[in-house]
Amino acid sequence: MTIIDGRKSTKKILSSLKRKITILKKQGRRFKLAVVLVGNDQASLSFIKQKEKSCLRIGIDFELFHFQSDIKTDDLCKKLKIIQEDTTVSALIVQLPLPEHINARQVLENINPKLDVDCLTSFNLGKLTAGIYNILPPTPAAIIYLIKEYKINIKSKHIVIVGKGELVGKPLSILLTQDQNTLTVCNKHTKNLESYTKQADLIISAVGKKDLITGSMVKKDVIIIDAGVNFRGKKIFGDVDFTSVSKKAKFITPTPGGVGPVTVAKLLENILSIDSK
Amino acid sequence: MTIIDGRKSTKKILSSLKRKITILKKQGRRFKLAVVLVGNDQASLSFIKQKEKSCLRIGIDFELFHFQSDIKTDDLCKKLKIIQEDTTVSALIVQLPLPEHINARQVLENINPKLDVDCLTSFNLGKLTAGIYNILPPTPAAIIYLIKEYKINIKSKHIVIVGKGELVGKPLSILLTQDQNTLTVCNKHTKNLESYTKQADLIISAVGKKDLITGSMVKKDVIIIDAGVNFRGKKIFGDVDFTSVSKKAKFITPTPGGVGPVTVAKLLENILSIDSK
Repeated sequence: MTIIDGRKSTKKILSSLKRKITILKKQGRRFKLAVVLVGNDQASLSFIKQKEKSCLRIGIDFELFHFQSDIKTDDLCKKLKIIQEDTTVSALIVQLPLPEHINARQVLENINPKLDVDCLTSFNLGKLTAGIYNILPPTPAAIIYLIKEYKINIKSKHIVIVGKGELVGKPLSILLTQDQNTLTVCNKHTKNLESYTKQADLIISAVGKKDLITGSMVKKDVIIIDAGVNFRGKKIFGDVDFTSVSKKAKFITPTPGGVGPVTVAKLLENILSIDSK
Repeated sequence: MTIIDGRKSTKKILSSLKRKITILKKQGRRFKLAVVLVGNDQASLSFIKQKEKSCLRIGIDFELFHFQSDIKTDDLCKKLKIIQEDTTVSALIVQLPLPEHINARQVLENINPKLDVDCLTSFNLGKLTAGIYNILPPTPAAIIYLIKEYKINIKSKHIVIVGKGELVGKPLSILLTQDQNTLTVCNKHTKNLESYTKQADLIISAVGKKDLITGSMVKKDVIIIDAGVNFRGKKIFGDVDFTSVSKKAKFITPTPGGVGPVTVAKLLENILSIDSK
């Protein structure tokens, strides 16, 4: 059994990015990530903290735009417009989830696709779907990176994705259907989840529910990528019960230290790749 | 066992469209579908014939632009530009497949999204993926229409799509993942296809391979939507062996007379819906 070391991969990606940024800065280039946060969701605050730290470490400026949770959709869109008029902003993300009363899609459509490093605008989703993307959404990018990094062969394998969310399940299922495998997407409407997970050669879980996947639900030598995140107090958990599942898995990502840090690294990589100039 | 009657649904859709077009024409509106064909693929010629007939029947003008199979990608793109400069063209499709030497994606990206009634540009695919579309690709639209028309409940069901092509499998899998079901996408890289089809509550096949799905590969009371098309001489076949599968199915589409005609009707519906003005 191999534990996939997300922190090691992250270090590698960030070092390479830092070198590139140092060179580009000497040529007069600057990079700045603007993050839009609405409300005080604890997980969001923690993710943003990680993004800020990583940005500053490799030489990307960072600015947080923090709005109260009762802001209206239209007002938030107006704020976005103003933020994006600042030509020093080279990338922008709106931290999800947004409060329920906000029309998230309308807000996302107000992100300039050239700044959209989370790849959430319909413009960039279209490129992704058509297979002509130059950036991928950070979490799917991190997952695909780790699969390649650990030389995991997914050709003709049965991949089961659990979760169909905007950030992971949905874009990842589009990307993986373009590949040479069989793909099943499960979600909260799936009856008898374990009948699917038991068949999987590779399980990618992105729900945010502690112990959703346990040892009895997987077959021997399964590969487990855990992209779920949920907090209990300050402690972070994935979807997978690591203790029981790791006894059967061939490869497994831990939480913390698995997909999470690589996701941040891939976000920063996107800031360079999207090339908004 | 119920045979899904695509021709009956088509008549209904076309009558409604004809009424709408008659009213719109009195208001001075005109509609014209431009079809771009490269080479002489027999199936393509047959599809185009059907589209032309249906267009003329309900009052949509039709123009075919037929190019030789050795046309280069760049030249085809230039031709597209000229065709789309004609303001009487309100919708345009490039008949797929294009010859191998042509970069199909490059050609499709040269379609004006406002004329793109096949919903193949990355712009319109992005809207589809983001869930903010006003048109759907014709075959997925036809399939979803028939499912609703026959009041087939797909909530919490296991849907298996066979095929991941640009016209059916790919867009349909994106649409159905946004729904409340479990979805598996199989393709030519799938090992042991019948282990998946046997689990399915609903099978949608869109490969173009005669007798790909036979009675022994499905469970009792399965619902079968056959969107495969292949010609043997002038005779048209789907993917499904109707004789053996219909003995076990609860609902089944025949070929011909199933998904095909509804697809044409949905294409024509898109010409009105896309509203290029």
